Amino acid sequence: MEPTTATFFDLVRPQLQAVESRMRQSADPHHPALETAIEHLLAAGGKRIRPTVALLAGSLLQAPDDRLVTLAAAIEMLHTATLVHDDLIDGALFRRGTPTLNAQWTAGATVLTGDYVFARAAQMAAQTGSLAVMESFARTLMAIVNGEISQLFREQVPQTLTAYQERIYAKTASLFELAAEGAALLAPGSAQAHEPMRRFGYNIGVAFQIVDDVLDFIGQPTQIGKPVGSDLRHGIVTLPVFKYLEQHADDPLARLAIAGQTLPADQVDQLVATIRSSSAIDESLDEARRMVDQASDLLEPLPDRPERAALIDLGRYVVQRTL
Amino acid sequence: MEPTTATFFDLVRPQLQAVESRMRQSADPHHPALETAIEHLLAAGGKRIRPTVALLAGSLLQAPDDRLVTLAAAIEMLHTATLVHDDLIDGALFRRGTPTLNAQWTAGATVLTGDYVFARAAQMAAQTGSLAVMESFARTLMAIVNGEISQLFREQVPQTLTAYQERIYAKTASLFELAAEGAALLAPGSAQAHEPMRRFGYNIGVAFQIVDDVLDFIGQPTQIGKPVGSDLRHGIVTLPVFKYLEQHADDPLARLAIAGQTLPADQVDQLVATIRSSSAIDESLDEARRMVDQASDLLEPLPDRPERAALIDLGRYVVQRTL
Repeated sequence: MEPTTATFFDLVRPQLQAVESRMRQSADPHHPALETAIEHLLAAGGKRIRPTVALLAGSLLQAPDDRLVTLAAAIEMLHTATLVHDDLIDGALFRRGTPTLNAQWTAGATVLTGDYVFARAAQMAAQTGSLAVMESFARTLMAIVNGEISQLFREQVPQTLTAYQERIYAKTASLFELAAEGAALLAPGSAQAHEPMRRFGYNIGVAFQIVDDVLDFIGQPTQIGKPVGSDLRHGIVTLPVFKYLEQHADDPLARLAIAGQTLPADQVDQLVATIRSSSAIDESLDEARRMVDQASDLLEPLPDRPERAALIDLGRYVVQRTL
Repeated sequence: MEPTTATFFDLVRPQLQAVESRMRQSADPHHPALETAIEHLLAAGGKRIRPTVALLAGSLLQAPDDRLVTLAAAIEMLHTATLVHDDLIDGALFRRGTPTLNAQWTAGATVLTGDYVFARAAQMAAQTGSLAVMESFARTLMAIVNGEISQLFREQVPQTLTAYQERIYAKTASLFELAAEGAALLAPGSAQAHEPMRRFGYNIGVAFQIVDDVLDFIGQPTQIGKPVGSDLRHGIVTLPVFKYLEQHADDPLARLAIAGQTLPADQVDQLVATIRSSSAIDESLDEARRMVDQASDLLEPLPDRPERAALIDLGRYVVQRTL
């Protein structure tokens, strides 16, 4: 794979700026405290990779720009809302190095701000004027909430690769899927592209989350905004642990982790160091790369336009941001 | 007005049972704790007055039964979700005499259960297959959340009748409006009925909330499930206070309340007793009755079917449940 310099953002730069404005319009001027909170949330946001997927996929299939921008804003708002409630549930005080709402506000104000961002997301999804998009939006919301509930109510039972796959679908892949499929749904006469686009989004989303999970082992705390091994510290087993166990089925710490036990800090440090220096990291990244390669293949029958090349480039970026 | 025996429920009894099943289908069998929580929420639910409005309005205009049941379930689920987050925000431990989720669960589990019920409501709204319904649904969700935010972020400023009207719209009338208008939107060829139905729902909703606010002064604590005067105790000024001030502009306690001050308990008791024995109670109920009379008038041009009589009967019931 060739390295990427994230030029894929450039192709939809004006639309991305329109997405930013659209999201900011949502701050109700009657409530200065809410406006500040939403500005804070949006300013602390990431690279807008989900809206970029929607904008590139939709532009490739020639969906109308205004509805596409509305969809992209709805998706990023939904993503933002889930982060607000997530941080409250986890009691997280920082996200990407910025204090969470939760760290500054009461639970009540945090819940309501999340609800407000949800409501705006739903309103924007309805404003795309597509019932099919609305249905996908509602299904995605359901998948995300179901995933969080599984996580919260999980019992101390052996963790399985299937449960991991379900979790990363709910947490990440479902939104990427919505971004790509929803954009295709807005393009007239693109019925044949709906399913490839949905699968493209799914694959990119799974790869994105696998890379996130790998970064939890090999990233710099300053870069990922949290201590290394934070998943294991919370009793969450991710792909590198499963890959490691394939070769080292008798490692006692890994077996305890997979049995659903929360390990003490020193044992987590030890297990993280072991997995870090094992082949499990590369094997996990290989899986992410395979997902991205398959995603690129799915685009082959689609029009050979610059947006297609940009989507392929975006896939490369998703797996290279580890390095 | 003739007394009512709430026979209006009978006309849509089978559909109301279908609504109950539809709402219960939403408990995800993979999470027993969630299923229990949702069963608890639904069992503690009220008389299903909002679904009944939707079912009667839709049946009158001959909307298809299955889509109507889906809409009615979506509306009651949305109502239920807002109560879950409300109780969390208020720290309420009881609702209608039953312990709240909030009293039994962590904030995280309560937030997620509310989110789950929201997500199911949105999914059902999408399943009505009507983009217009979906748009109304999203607008209503926005109105409700905005109202809660105004409430939470309110400053200690003089309280106005306009702010009161906005609050009862957000809190109650918006959902009744959605019930009546949404049902009309599902009826083919009923375009002329959309606006009268929307206004019917609005009026019934306003009357319903005024009666709730009156009951906070004159109800039995065992009947209303909370101590008398609980609004004033929380610094919330409702219609009876405004009506009382029209005649007693110089009452120092009422003036303090309307200035946005939270009164100590003994002063609240005193003000509640004064207002209770004043004409403000009857004047408030008169206003509710006027809203219901106007609502009945709005139905006059609509087909003379049993559902129309039942909707008029439902309006009477809304203002008589005080007695």
